[in-house]
Amino acid sequence: MGKKKLSRRSLLKGAAIGGIGAAVAGSQLLGKTPKADAAGISGELARVMKERGLSPDDVLAAAKTYIPEGVHDPYLCISSGGQSGQLILYGVPSMRILKIIGVFGLETWQGWGFDKESQEILKQGNVMGKPVYTGDTHHPGFSETKGDYDGEYVFINDKSQGRIAVIDTRDWQTKQIVKNPVLKSTHGGTSVTQDTEYVFTACQYAAPYDNKYYDPMDQETYNKYFRGGHTYWKFDRKKGRIDMENSFTIELPPYMQDINDCGKLMSHGWGFSNSFNTERYLGGIERGNPPFEAGCSANDTDFIHMTNWLKAEEVIKKGDYKVINGHKVIPMDVAIENGLVYLIPVMKSPHGITVSPDGRYILASGKLDTHVSVYDFKKIMHLIDRKIYDGKDPYGIPILSMRRTLHGMVQTGLGPLHNQFDVADTHIAYNSLFVDSAIVKYDYIKLKVLDRIPIHYNVGHLTAVHGDTVNPRGKYLISLNKLAIDRFAPIGPLHPQNHELIDISDPLHKNMRMLYAMPVPIGEPHYAQIIETSILKKRTWKVYPLGTDATTMARSPYRTLAGREKIIRKGNHVEVWATAIRSHFNPEHIYCKVGDKVTIHITNLERAEDETHDFGIYYYNVTASLEPGKTATVEFIADKEGIFPYYCQEFCSALHLEMFGYLAVLPKDAEFPEGAFFNHEEE
Amino acid sequence: MGKKKLSRRSLLKGAAIGGIGAAVAGSQLLGKTPKADAAGISGELARVMKERGLSPDDVLAAAKTYIPEGVHDPYLCISSGGQSGQLILYGVPSMRILKIIGVFGLETWQGWGFDKESQEILKQGNVMGKPVYTGDTHHPGFSETKGDYDGEYVFINDKSQGRIAVIDTRDWQTKQIVKNPVLKSTHGGTSVTQDTEYVFTACQYAAPYDNKYYDPMDQETYNKYFRGGHTYWKFDRKKGRIDMENSFTIELPPYMQDINDCGKLMSHGWGFSNSFNTERYLGGIERGNPPFEAGCSANDTDFIHMTNWLKAEEVIKKGDYKVINGHKVIPMDVAIENGLVYLIPVMKSPHGITVSPDGRYILASGKLDTHVSVYDFKKIMHLIDRKIYDGKDPYGIPILSMRRTLHGMVQTGLGPLHNQFDVADTHIAYNSLFVDSAIVKYDYIKLKVLDRIPIHYNVGHLTAVHGDTVNPRGKYLISLNKLAIDRFAPIGPLHPQNHELIDISDPLHKNMRMLYAMPVPIGEPHYAQIIETSILKKRTWKVYPLGTDATTMARSPYRTLAGREKIIRKGNHVEVWATAIRSHFNPEHIYCKVGDKVTIHITNLERAEDETHDFGIYYYNVTASLEPGKTATVEFIADKEGIFPYYCQEFCSALHLEMFGYLAVLPKDAEFPEGAFFNHEEE
Repeated sequence: MGKKKLSRRSLLKGAAIGGIGAAVAGSQLLGKTPKADAAGISGELARVMKERGLSPDDVLAAAKTYIPEGVHDPYLCISSGGQSGQLILYGVPSMRILKIIGVFGLETWQGWGFDKESQEILKQGNVMGKPVYTGDTHHPGFSETKGDYDGEYVFINDKSQGRIAVIDTRDWQTKQIVKNPVLKSTHGGTSVTQDTEYVFTACQYAAPYDNKYYDPMDQETYNKYFRGGHTYWKFDRKKGRIDMENSFTIELPPYMQDINDCGKLMSHGWGFSNSFNTERYLGGIERGNPPFEAGCSANDTDFIHMTNWLKAEEVIKKGDYKVINGHKVIPMDVAIENGLVYLIPVMKSPHGITVSPDGRYILASGKLDTHVSVYDFKKIMHLIDRKIYDGKDPYGIPILSMRRTLHGMVQTGLGPLHNQFDVADTHIAYNSLFVDSAIVKYDYIKLKVLDRIPIHYNVGHLTAVHGDTVNPRGKYLISLNKLAIDRFAPIGPLHPQNHELIDISDPLHKNMRMLYAMPVPIGEPHYAQIIETSILKKRTWKVYPLGTDATTMARSPYRTLAGREKIIRKGNHVEVWATAIRSHFNPEHIYCKVGDKVTIHITNLERAEDETHDFGIYYYNVTASLEPGKTATVEFIADKEGIFPYYCQEFCSALHLEMFGYLAVLPKDAEFPEGAFFNHEEE
Repeated sequence: MGKKKLSRRSLLKGAAIGGIGAAVAGSQLLGKTPKADAAGISGELARVMKERGLSPDDVLAAAKTYIPEGVHDPYLCISSGGQSGQLILYGVPSMRILKIIGVFGLETWQGWGFDKESQEILKQGNVMGKPVYTGDTHHPGFSETKGDYDGEYVFINDKSQGRIAVIDTRDWQTKQIVKNPVLKSTHGGTSVTQDTEYVFTACQYAAPYDNKYYDPMDQETYNKYFRGGHTYWKFDRKKGRIDMENSFTIELPPYMQDINDCGKLMSHGWGFSNSFNTERYLGGIERGNPPFEAGCSANDTDFIHMTNWLKAEEVIKKGDYKVINGHKVIPMDVAIENGLVYLIPVMKSPHGITVSPDGRYILASGKLDTHVSVYDFKKIMHLIDRKIYDGKDPYGIPILSMRRTLHGMVQTGLGPLHNQFDVADTHIAYNSLFVDSAIVKYDYIKLKVLDRIPIHYNVGHLTAVHGDTVNPRGKYLISLNKLAIDRFAPIGPLHPQNHELIDISDPLHKNMRMLYAMPVPIGEPHYAQIIETSILKKRTWKVYPLGTDATTMARSPYRTLAGREKIIRKGNHVEVWATAIRSHFNPEHIYCKVGDKVTIHITNLERAEDETHDFGIYYYNVTASLEPGKTATVEFIADKEGIFPYYCQEFCSALHLEMFGYLAVLPKDAEFPEGAFFNHEEE
């Protein structure tokens, strides 16, 4: 691992230095200022290579990933944060992380969960009425139009609580969280239909739809009450929000549905997911049974599940559904009756499932089998249209023949997990091999392996530029590796993850070339998508319109203009309409009494880009990030007497430290000093 | 901003390409395999440069920062996270972030605040008995031995709550949080004495030491009751913890003490800090007064504060202190009487204060004045020893003459904030100019400016390799810029910060050269330190000894070996001793009743590096990161009946998804199934 082939490299290095040195001698093009001397620079490069132990390949990789001063990365990658519960955004090919965004958990830099407005969003994610901040984000997905990323919204799931969130790329903040009313754990998803009619998620750990106890170690009980599902979340593009009312779940058996993908073009209308526990194994290592990992892997095949959301809409319209926890559920028998669900066997405990750019081929990775299985949608439909089944599962769901739906299989290696696509008409896909720590490039029509590259180490998913769309762009592939082990300077037992950037479009080389290793310093990404930056540039805001509530993206009712600041005390409620602008808050003093509720609305009056302020205060556990134009509110009960400094927590100006104030909490029986409250009558 | 000088660059680029192209023609050293052909590679480099618009300088910068596959960064940088309340760790010169560490707030990836052990640490940071998760980290500092970083511990302050934390570099996790019992806001610090006898912090926003109300807008009250201070935290190296019992604060006037630094070598025993409100201005823009930013800047000078902690130890031994909130405080009059405190005027509302590597010179940046003021410790002591004062401040503290303590002043530019040192005997320092967006290199003995480089934009502090020590290494300087504006792809109104890496040791060039721009994606760093990775390599653990409690770094009483798993129910408490190893938890089922307290201790039995597992569960808002060898505990009240899946949240193996279990919560009147509890009698 990580050892260089020293002799060959030294040789090459020497040669390269020699070659560049030849340029030194040969080139006297522009005179001899330190920067202008091309020969001098070539000599410098040679010296740096020698000093730093760089091979010519290293210099090439560096040149392919370096972004010059002030230039923007041409691609952006959205990556999940795993147990950080966040979304990570980074530039490609520089592999520099640009933003880490709070989604399901608390995050103080953005004031996420610490200002009133964001607290309302997080509340939407409550589980059985309680806040749950332990999110596990897995699969971010851009909204799509005509099957390509339009970049307006990002959806992301939380596997641990069965939630999804909607992020608006105008300001890259979370706008909505939705808790699945029937599924407790959703791994597959988010995947979107080709015009984002729906956001598709699949259940992971089967559980009863209700909140009752059922013995998970009783096979009959388990078979009868534990369920999986495919949930289709209706997306209202105008509002930019999930429409829970018009969302629905298709009830499925407890097979641990897994990764999913939506059909497109010819397969538009269908959703596909894998699964890994058609055995319906109950586990119980504590009772001497084989553990889940053994029992779930017993069968030679598990099932791909296909569900038809387009037809399901009709079934819903007919009123053929149950309502469970306020959510529309199409029961299995209704689904079967209406041809909404089919199963196809796949080797062996499969993982990723990906639909090809033209919508025709469905690729499944074997995980415990060494093949990628390529299914042909036309063959699938041929059998479905003629009702040619290979039997039914215990719940009565029709099974289609694996042999008759397969286009073919390609042997890629040990532990195939996921696939991504190159430019559509190349018919090239890339398969990640977890156990082999490698990526295989192959032709999924000709079923032929073309190239293989080692990665470091144990890759999960892959992402390519626009890789999930009808129009993948090629160019770059990123390997989302799960283990870093020795790749980075040691920083303790908890290691970063390792995202490796691979060049897949080098015109001189058909083969993949490793370019860059990027440690992921927080969380554990599981899935990512890469989009052209230009798509986002037109959309993303630089500042907020003055007085915007970031959670509604509309004017806040508490917007305060300069000169309109006020403090009003009504009963035991002190309400402040404040402003922030370089370099002061207004007001600089807030008085209240012990036990008062204090509500402070702050508007950042700046119009200049990046002139962000931030509100921090002693003891009261509230904070707000105040971007230019934003209005945010903090609220608390002033339960302790005393002096509480507050100040600007985002370095904004030369006089940033002088941007502060005092909250003064009086005992109940004390008198307020004169001028403590001021009130402008005009609105 | 950010525009290239196109014509000159294009010219240079053409020249370089031509030069390298000459090498193409001239060099046929090693035959023609794609990797081995030096000429081919030079040709490739030229093509990549053209395609990507890189100048020769860009290629040089890329070559100077690129780290080849599997090679470790030679330097590590610790940076504060600002309002993220975290510590950020990144590699230099690759500028890749390696880890983001939870300190004062909650963080789910590390389970920080979500497992029982870490909750105990966070509790130490409670303010007036309540948890406050809104930390504002500013100044991390490595522990020192003989005035150089020994890298064993990192201290970091929280400006917003007056707290500091101790991080152990064996596993880079927070081990202790300490709340300052008398100061509510501490900006200056953490700075360490040369053998880490003490960790030094200075007050920012003056406030009364107690928790009573005093009118902040009454001058007499303010002058009488509002206080600043210098707190010296005793560090017990053996325990690796702050010893609160032997820590103390020297009471100071309400001058808003600011950035601080400890003396070293000849100035060992002293602590220095700046200040910005000797005006004792009260503000009140809401009442028509000039805001704080104006009033605090009225005077031509503010004060450097010098306090003598070495002498203060003697005063404490004599018993000459008060106890406030359980903390030893040396009152101002006692401090004055014992020669523990002196003031020196400095222009104008100064910011950074830094002691030179030999301990003799104290550099203060003017902030609102365009100079760096260089004070001479020998001159200072000359006056102190002879009691030659320039009067006293309103509290009776002796003032030393600015003129007679200055070595000299250097005019650097607009908004000087901070200084860092190059190799000691060069007498070179670097000054950050916030308003000018530049860095100036100068000789602080000769008081001569040597070079200037623009940065992007508005730099706060700087950091150089071992820059705060007796032995700075030179090589690199990082500019911690506060505004990024247009430097990175647009990602909404909340921008990343921008850390720019500068080459200060290029043997061919006396001048500074910009190398790399690193966006900081979460929080806002204020200060950083850079250390040689080799110092840490011997110390940092790869795995934990089996069964370690990470908060004590010793064996957990709950360590569970394979085969020793058990579930015991006593009354309404279900306690589980569980294990995690690829790819299963043991047990896979936990039964309890509604209302039971459930305590789950999990030991990760893996011994392989980076084989981390993680515990996540539905609804109960607990999680634990389980590094190899670690034992961690989660605890909750099972207040809802039903089925709650739990699973491994850190991708650990091919069968990672199969690593799960069920918590089954029975209604109170139901019967437990057989085998629900099992108990191994032997310990």
